[in-house]
Amino acid sequence: MALVVQKYGGTSVANAERIKNVARRVAAYYRQGNQMVVVVSARGDTTDELIALAREISPRPPERELDMLLATGEQQSIALVAMAIRELGLPVISLTGPQVGIITDNAHTKARILEVSSERLNAELAKGRIVIVAGFQGMTIDHDITTLGRGGSDTTAVAVAAALKADVCEIYTDVEGVFTADPRLVPDARKLEEVSFDEMLEMASLGAQVLQPRAVEFAKQYGVRLHVRSSFSEAPGTIVREGREVEKEIVVTGVAHDRNVAKIGIFGVPDRPGIAYRLFSALAADHINVDMIVQSAMREERNDIAFTVGKDDLAKAVEVVARVNNEIGAQGYVADEGVAKVSIVGAGMITNPGVAARMFEALAEENINIEMISTSEIKVSCIIRAEETEKAVRALHRKFELDKLA
Amino acid sequence: MALVVQKYGGTSVANAERIKNVARRVAAYYRQGNQMVVVVSARGDTTDELIALAREISPRPPERELDMLLATGEQQSIALVAMAIRELGLPVISLTGPQVGIITDNAHTKARILEVSSERLNAELAKGRIVIVAGFQGMTIDHDITTLGRGGSDTTAVAVAAALKADVCEIYTDVEGVFTADPRLVPDARKLEEVSFDEMLEMASLGAQVLQPRAVEFAKQYGVRLHVRSSFSEAPGTIVREGREVEKEIVVTGVAHDRNVAKIGIFGVPDRPGIAYRLFSALAADHINVDMIVQSAMREERNDIAFTVGKDDLAKAVEVVARVNNEIGAQGYVADEGVAKVSIVGAGMITNPGVAARMFEALAEENINIEMISTSEIKVSCIIRAEETEKAVRALHRKFELDKLA
Repeated sequence: MALVVQKYGGTSVANAERIKNVARRVAAYYRQGNQMVVVVSARGDTTDELIALAREISPRPPERELDMLLATGEQQSIALVAMAIRELGLPVISLTGPQVGIITDNAHTKARILEVSSERLNAELAKGRIVIVAGFQGMTIDHDITTLGRGGSDTTAVAVAAALKADVCEIYTDVEGVFTADPRLVPDARKLEEVSFDEMLEMASLGAQVLQPRAVEFAKQYGVRLHVRSSFSEAPGTIVREGREVEKEIVVTGVAHDRNVAKIGIFGVPDRPGIAYRLFSALAADHINVDMIVQSAMREERNDIAFTVGKDDLAKAVEVVARVNNEIGAQGYVADEGVAKVSIVGAGMITNPGVAARMFEALAEENINIEMISTSEIKVSCIIRAEETEKAVRALHRKFELDKLA
Repeated sequence: MALVVQKYGGTSVANAERIKNVARRVAAYYRQGNQMVVVVSARGDTTDELIALAREISPRPPERELDMLLATGEQQSIALVAMAIRELGLPVISLTGPQVGIITDNAHTKARILEVSSERLNAELAKGRIVIVAGFQGMTIDHDITTLGRGGSDTTAVAVAAALKADVCEIYTDVEGVFTADPRLVPDARKLEEVSFDEMLEMASLGAQVLQPRAVEFAKQYGVRLHVRSSFSEAPGTIVREGREVEKEIVVTGVAHDRNVAKIGIFGVPDRPGIAYRLFSALAADHINVDMIVQSAMREERNDIAFTVGKDDLAKAVEVVARVNNEIGAQGYVADEGVAKVSIVGAGMITNPGVAARMFEALAEENINIEMISTSEIKVSCIIRAEETEKAVRALHRKFELDKLA
């Protein structure tokens, strides 16, 4: 008997038919003798609809109240999934994040999980029940409802799996696993059988929108074995785990891209210690996630600093920059939403020199201008114009021969 | 400085414009120096839509999960109302029923409030905040989410007002107060300035759908002064309070009607002690509210028993009757959804003989057949065919001269 945590995303529970599908899959696992905990997201576009509703009332709604509103999406899903499973004659109970005891900090709309209580979950499992848990939500120690940010249900699933020491955490999505590139852009992209946590982490944070980066971090930290697979098929997906064998021939595992990127450039920053600290700590205080940061060479004792944020955070980031610029005496700034990020990822990269150069070559051959570059041990990322994303991803997939099995 | 509890129903918060309207009204009271607690219902048809969604999954969804689903409607409303008030620059916080500490029994879908904690409410009021509370919901001592049944937000408002010892509890609806009859049926129906709790109780339970009966009971029990008024106008509505002066001339205060009625007749019931107990305790165990009960005269040692329930409860009630009939050896039963209830209500009735006879006369003059009769000190109710409701209400309003001020 295994303890299985499954997570179903919004498309998997978008309507009554799909909810019944999820119920049948969960029932099959349960009947095989597994203990089942199922984490679900809000149905389809519910979250977007609720945000639109909030904006009709207030252009920038208070985040505590936004969380109060958004948390209802997942609460509806768990009730409906529980009804569908009961309809199949099985014992089941739904629990909200607060009911489970998922405690977070109070960074509303992107709260971090501090603790997951296993008490109520274990009590319900001990009664033989299938437990349906609302993803994406938790509560502060003061009982305020929080949400974990987009994709937060993945994090809920992994955190619950870690708390329960589950045998596996299956993440069901609308794709069949992790691919060498987005199959919508690259028709001959291949499904990967396995990736390491680090590779997945780079791919996830670089916009292969299969798994939430924080979920992968969590899984790596607690050694939770992930299985990313499709809720519309029985085919195995991609296993994400520690220390997979890196085959020597595979240098680049995949090409990732992210269109949810905006760039802010600050120019004429005085070259004094503590400037970067003031800027980025101010952004952090407003819970703005900064991704790439590039600082150019000194020029007449003044620097240029460029960084990227998610498009959602651009307005907030610009406010912070405008304020901090005054304090630090920078000359000005530009904000640019028309960019995208393309990246190559692979654990084999670290021992293979010249990989970055091949990437730049591929982009140059397509006449694609590179606006920012950032590198780590296992990835290279470039900021380009958004409209060239598709061309760039295809060129990179071809250049690194990802369509061919090594 | 007064402590005011206001309750806004679903039509008052149906869309962004109306929510902003509610916010402006609340803000005006707050700026006059009042402490404000505002109870809101789910927007417009949200509850009905959620029920329809549940039925797509399961014809008879488990009630615990139905409550989990339905409670999201009010949670959305409180977040949106709080956003609208914050947009006006005022301090505000929304709280779910569980966050307030509204403890109920575990009769899911029609739970009863056992206790309302005033701790969190008082703490937020002490911070100078307007507090928005989700109506219709609470939690059991095991932290399961419950709902209070249709119209339960009224009960929430009164219970909160009682817990806080509020100066007044204003119930905002889409009508201007309590009328001598439904103005949609009787164009010259008059708005009443005051009614007593008992009169309101009879009218409420008899289908003058302005206030939830349990809310009136609660208000009577704790001496909460109610003011029923329209959220679309500034006009004063109807005050509901203890011991209003009954003017001698006014015998009948109003005519109420209820189309949400179904009748079950059981025939050939053995005339033994304990039979009624077995039937009605079985119905109570399934949380079915029985309204009128009529038992006919003995006939060959067998009785007929007829009773009415809400249309929603008919299917469940028939199940219970079919089971109990077997046990008690009754000969059969009929269920009839095509009925309605019309009633006359008035605190002056008790000292005026012949009121019931005048009611029957009015119905006879219109050729309306009476299928069941039930009376109390301050009301007389008749079950008639549903299609004759309008005719009956008009005839009674005319007969008792309710269009004329006494």
